[in-house]
Amino acid sequence: MNLTNQQLWRRFQTCYSEFPSLGLALDLSRMNFSDDFFELMDGRLQRAFAAMADLERGGIANPDENRMVGHYWLRNPALAPSPEIRHEIERTVGDIKAFASAVHHGVVHGAGGYFKHLLLIGIGGSALGPQFVSSALGHPRTDKMDVYFFDNTDPDGMDKVLAEVDSGLGETLCLVISKSGGTKETRNGMFEAQAAYERAGLNFHSHAVAVTGVGSELDRYAIKNAWLRRFPMWDWVGGRTSELSAVGLLPAALQGVEIDNLLAGARACDDITRQNNVKTNPSAQLAAMWYHAGNGKGMKDMVILPYKDRLGLFSKYLQQLIMESIGKELDLNGNLVNQGLAVYGNKGSTDQHAYIQQLRDGLNNFFVTFIEVLKDREDHLLFVEPNVTSGDYLNGFLLGTRQALHEKDRESMTITVRDVSAFSIGVLIALYERAVGYYASLININAYHQPGVEAGKKAASSIMSLQLNVLKYLTNSRGQPKTVEQIAQYIDTEEDVEMIFKICEHLAANPDRLVVKAPHENPFCATYTKA
Amino acid sequence: MNLTNQQLWRRFQTCYSEFPSLGLALDLSRMNFSDDFFELMDGRLQRAFAAMADLERGGIANPDENRMVGHYWLRNPALAPSPEIRHEIERTVGDIKAFASAVHHGVVHGAGGYFKHLLLIGIGGSALGPQFVSSALGHPRTDKMDVYFFDNTDPDGMDKVLAEVDSGLGETLCLVISKSGGTKETRNGMFEAQAAYERAGLNFHSHAVAVTGVGSELDRYAIKNAWLRRFPMWDWVGGRTSELSAVGLLPAALQGVEIDNLLAGARACDDITRQNNVKTNPSAQLAAMWYHAGNGKGMKDMVILPYKDRLGLFSKYLQQLIMESIGKELDLNGNLVNQGLAVYGNKGSTDQHAYIQQLRDGLNNFFVTFIEVLKDREDHLLFVEPNVTSGDYLNGFLLGTRQALHEKDRESMTITVRDVSAFSIGVLIALYERAVGYYASLININAYHQPGVEAGKKAASSIMSLQLNVLKYLTNSRGQPKTVEQIAQYIDTEEDVEMIFKICEHLAANPDRLVVKAPHENPFCATYTKA
Repeated sequence: MNLTNQQLWRRFQTCYSEFPSLGLALDLSRMNFSDDFFELMDGRLQRAFAAMADLERGGIANPDENRMVGHYWLRNPALAPSPEIRHEIERTVGDIKAFASAVHHGVVHGAGGYFKHLLLIGIGGSALGPQFVSSALGHPRTDKMDVYFFDNTDPDGMDKVLAEVDSGLGETLCLVISKSGGTKETRNGMFEAQAAYERAGLNFHSHAVAVTGVGSELDRYAIKNAWLRRFPMWDWVGGRTSELSAVGLLPAALQGVEIDNLLAGARACDDITRQNNVKTNPSAQLAAMWYHAGNGKGMKDMVILPYKDRLGLFSKYLQQLIMESIGKELDLNGNLVNQGLAVYGNKGSTDQHAYIQQLRDGLNNFFVTFIEVLKDREDHLLFVEPNVTSGDYLNGFLLGTRQALHEKDRESMTITVRDVSAFSIGVLIALYERAVGYYASLININAYHQPGVEAGKKAASSIMSLQLNVLKYLTNSRGQPKTVEQIAQYIDTEEDVEMIFKICEHLAANPDRLVVKAPHENPFCATYTKA
Repeated sequence: MNLTNQQLWRRFQTCYSEFPSLGLALDLSRMNFSDDFFELMDGRLQRAFAAMADLERGGIANPDENRMVGHYWLRNPALAPSPEIRHEIERTVGDIKAFASAVHHGVVHGAGGYFKHLLLIGIGGSALGPQFVSSALGHPRTDKMDVYFFDNTDPDGMDKVLAEVDSGLGETLCLVISKSGGTKETRNGMFEAQAAYERAGLNFHSHAVAVTGVGSELDRYAIKNAWLRRFPMWDWVGGRTSELSAVGLLPAALQGVEIDNLLAGARACDDITRQNNVKTNPSAQLAAMWYHAGNGKGMKDMVILPYKDRLGLFSKYLQQLIMESIGKELDLNGNLVNQGLAVYGNKGSTDQHAYIQQLRDGLNNFFVTFIEVLKDREDHLLFVEPNVTSGDYLNGFLLGTRQALHEKDRESMTITVRDVSAFSIGVLIALYERAVGYYASLININAYHQPGVEAGKKAASSIMSLQLNVLKYLTNSRGQPKTVEQIAQYIDTEEDVEMIFKICEHLAANPDRLVVKAPHENPFCATYTKA
């Protein structure tokens, strides 16, 4: 589209929508859709609106798992399909606020006194939202607790986090979050934390809180060991849409975030994005643009560029929300579709010094979503040149890059929010949650399951069994060097010899596992001996 | 490729190479290249080897900017094309070690005593390497200084960092890094830091050190204000390959990293990857695989998945190194090629809970590079199940996901390193630097310039001028409400009315700029008044 600036100004006026109740604006003027695009999309969009209305009424929107999808009720419990669900949502929010207040006032405390630190143990949907919100809304001067994360099963990574908390474990509240209650990474993190408390002479259980499904493995562990507290997760909330359940609200409240404002922002956004009119519905507009950009097949990557340090984790959060929801093999009719929408990005203007070179000059396989934050800072005004601030530069780089990309026919959208606050973060979360829901309808897939993640877990589990067999055989042959083919032969799994090689290499690199490697010029003739 | 496990084991043995002097292995067995692929690539690879040899001898490898490309000399100064360059490299490394030692011993100190904190102000190539190395090699228990970053021109982001340093500015060394010495984000960061020192009653200049080109704007500022010290950057080192120049070595040495080991790792890797034989050259193998995966056109995204928290920033570092080098409009003959290689990823197994769903089931538009670290942790052995550690799970998830992707015909490579150490980080940096150089040759582009980043900067600069004009006009019309079209008309830039709208919205959202907005139902009829 080669338009003059005046033509662009006219297009901008047509394609720019303000949503004053949300403090939000959305500009689609640099997406090259045709004048009749929305008309052509109308049938699909109407079906998407209908599907969403059904979902919100409590229909089975996740047919594979036979589940309702109810994250919208979390911020407007009056919409829940039953009084029981409504009461449970309301009671849980009340419980969270009461518990956070008890912690802040020292009524609930650790062996070392007031809880000053929060160690959140979770992964995926149980970490990405809390990490995003913590970094978006936290501030060293005002946080009631500082927050650390175990979000992996890397022992060295956990050691490093523990070293940061240092001698403060007695003032550290441990929050273990797992919807299923059986996630291995999270369970391992819990055991690592428990061991650290024990090394410090402290009782882990009296510093621990669980967020999990009632009756789960984690729930039973917490009951058995008399943990401080348990908060519920419900099967009608998916992990990647759980930020406004106890999963996200509890750590946010503990850090000092006004969770009522988070909920209010999401509720206000739901009110707007529930409307069956794409012209006044920013979530539907986003979904339609994703469809346009990637031709309904995800053929362009989504680059997320918030010009604000506080939003630096938003793209990681969206990677899960979007890619896990949209990346599906089959559509709802069982046809092979291999859908997806790859998401990446960090923040501007920082990323201009990383990969904007490629975006402007290179492969045109993406569209950008700029996120503009109008308010620069809380405190003092500082000019870096006469009448020019650092924030003017930040905004100028966003606008300049938007223009530079447009000149080279690279597409972009711009989302504008007034500030980064609990309310606007609630808006952004709800905006994208519903855009994902609409887009899934547009391409006719189930956005609410994740059948593809099981295979890797199952494979890992059989590798753990194989490793135990390898260790058992090496232990039984203590002192005798064995090649991987010998090991495979003796434990009767000759088809797994490559995996045995990988397992032995890993064991031998960790001296305390007592598997000693004798290298060989041919790596596959090296031997391994249990000492 | 549907192979049995035994066929895979044979393929693995053919496609797996160990490089004992580097503590490195590379496995290409899950890339679906044909048996004759390397034969077919031989001509291109030989040309790439020849181009690299020429570059290393000091040829003009960046013809657009008429520059030598000498980052390989940084770790082996004996290879530098002149004694002057050799001596300058050696002297600078010596100066860095001496300066870091003087800081650690309090010989050089701040107004508050020993320097305990380091505030690095830089962006792009002047921040991504230092951030990656700091997070890969730092540890709260052993770091000699803790490190903070200003890597943007976001005033709120800087305020947040300053709040973390809190009252410790008198013990904080400021390191301002800009190769050109004219990067606006970095200059703004410097002014913001300077103002913070002044608010704290401290002299910024006696806490400041510059890394920049001799004679640059920053260099002159540092001289004029008698900064603590200046270290040189050279025009034959590009920003994205500057980690082993003063840009990266100085902050690493100050944090307490053994920079000799970083250099030794990179030098050892260069020695191996300089060999003109793809079979024994892991950088050439990587480049060839990138060519295979994306058909020489970047048609598949590169997903980087290190299974190690310490390597969580590696993909961000590689985004710049690869995308800024490879994302080019023209080839060396001036043909329009729009090359690129999109890079994203964070870490495993965390990302398995984010987007592995899409990688396994969805769009097959990527290839994965797994990075396996054999050593789990420094300290204590802890079992989370009988004979099973957290690290076993970490490794098991890597192997399981590699297998699950392979089952669905998704391609992957695996890089294995023994541990995360200064030496292995030096290896990884050098490995990828040279892979980028080879790949650029394979596709016949200049990897060492970035012509596409200027347009956004120029546009931003003209937006800054426009804003000054808007402010001037509003000030001259003080008290009189103006629409954006009126402003445009009066300052005679009617073609810029959209930009004026964006500028006014930003000014009005920041109360201390004294531009008051009167909203209107039609956003383009709102008025703005200078109070």
